[in-house]
Amino acid sequence: MTTEQLVAQIHKKKSFLCIGLDVDLTKIPKHLLETEDPIFEFNKAIIDATHHLCVAYKPNIAFYEAYGIDGWKSLKKTIDYLNKNHPEIFTIADAKRGDIGNTSSMYAKAFFEDLAFDSVTIAPYMGKDSVEPFLAFPNKHTILLALTSNQGAFDFQTKKLENQELYKQVIETSKTYENSENLMYVVGATKASYFKEIRKIIPNSFLLVPGVGAQGGSLQEVCKYGLSSNIGLLINSSRGIIYASNAKDFAEVAAQKATDLKNEMQEFL
Amino acid sequence: MTTEQLVAQIHKKKSFLCIGLDVDLTKIPKHLLETEDPIFEFNKAIIDATHHLCVAYKPNIAFYEAYGIDGWKSLKKTIDYLNKNHPEIFTIADAKRGDIGNTSSMYAKAFFEDLAFDSVTIAPYMGKDSVEPFLAFPNKHTILLALTSNQGAFDFQTKKLENQELYKQVIETSKTYENSENLMYVVGATKASYFKEIRKIIPNSFLLVPGVGAQGGSLQEVCKYGLSSNIGLLINSSRGIIYASNAKDFAEVAAQKATDLKNEMQEFL
Repeated sequence: MTTEQLVAQIHKKKSFLCIGLDVDLTKIPKHLLETEDPIFEFNKAIIDATHHLCVAYKPNIAFYEAYGIDGWKSLKKTIDYLNKNHPEIFTIADAKRGDIGNTSSMYAKAFFEDLAFDSVTIAPYMGKDSVEPFLAFPNKHTILLALTSNQGAFDFQTKKLENQELYKQVIETSKTYENSENLMYVVGATKASYFKEIRKIIPNSFLLVPGVGAQGGSLQEVCKYGLSSNIGLLINSSRGIIYASNAKDFAEVAAQKATDLKNEMQEFL
Repeated sequence: MTTEQLVAQIHKKKSFLCIGLDVDLTKIPKHLLETEDPIFEFNKAIIDATHHLCVAYKPNIAFYEAYGIDGWKSLKKTIDYLNKNHPEIFTIADAKRGDIGNTSSMYAKAFFEDLAFDSVTIAPYMGKDSVEPFLAFPNKHTILLALTSNQGAFDFQTKKLENQELYKQVIETSKTYENSENLMYVVGATKASYFKEIRKIIPNSFLLVPGVGAQGGSLQEVCKYGLSSNIGLLINSSRGIIYASNAKDFAEVAAQKATDLKNEMQEFL
């Protein structure tokens, strides 16, 4: 998917909501556990109830790997369902991968070809040759971890690397990578004041923003400093939407929560 | 596996060799492609031919994910084969994972419980709460990326973070994490001169060392600066061993290459 298609979808739906599909079998409604593939059935119900409210879905791959081969099958069914029924929706494999060149190529093949995601999240620690193999895929997007939403972000990311914070160095340096036009960035909503600084370096790049809601970030603040001329934001909510209810009406309640967030977004569009 | 058991195995076998099981279907002998599970058959042949020469095996997970569900099945068969037939051998899931707390717990479950690896490699960028969920597993080891062997390592790792190189900060900071006794570190052999500095910070921790052979690192140099009183080194070779031949005798040739490296190691033990 091209960035233009993503932006067109945002304007059409009046939403830049991304829904995280982080399925934990201990948290989903009990009646689904009797089905053959509870993870997929849960995702399908959430997708059916919310696809008109969001522009992106983001399965966090850890939640699938934790269930081994069965989890991997559920992931494949989920992305296939999305690509078949909602090809206009942007898909994000939240995998946080990154390895030396030839190995990163294998990960890129896994997520862009075998699973056919539009994008994948990548950790920058190993530098240029760990990122460029992902960037080589046309119309696929590489979402680099810049400033994450967790407490551990302060261990290294906000410290100064040769007089500039590491996360800024990551963003600056990544702009020199080949095919850097395929880059997006993860920037946690819990650090809204940093958005202003980040927009000085990358005025137009799309930012995937976790941490609104459950982790305490403010949509208002993020939009104030983070919106760009082409919107440039994907606001992710996972637990706040998909686990809003664990009764039989979970999908409708999820849709209600997604609607609330979407409505909040409208005033910024 | 405890560190003591690993050290005992090193002394018994007179080897601290780790063999990387990075299976690429385009590189393995053609006759294996006719079998039902070529990846597993290749690994089994390599393991059968080399298990007395090495103390660890390290499948790089990217090479399995690239083949989707089939790849994941081959990985499961490989680790099950190792755990059943060679429980004394240290197993490393080279996965380079790391995510916010509850998500890292899912990855830890995947690699330590579902797949029953002894250890997993972890990227440090997201800090404390992305690493500690792995450290919470007793007798399991978390191998933190410190200084990697690729060119991209110079993008950030060797730059100064508040007057100390990032990789040193990563090592220093990780010592304050809960259960830090379960930490090992990835340190690339291509930067042997750094080992001296690293040993000042962590005199005894085990270091997993990629980059000997194919990537140009010197075993001699690594041992000179990296050996500790309990050895403290696992030298990895992947391509240099497993792809030394792609004819029917590939496993014997692999064993010969492993023997050569093992013999080089003996003089340091």
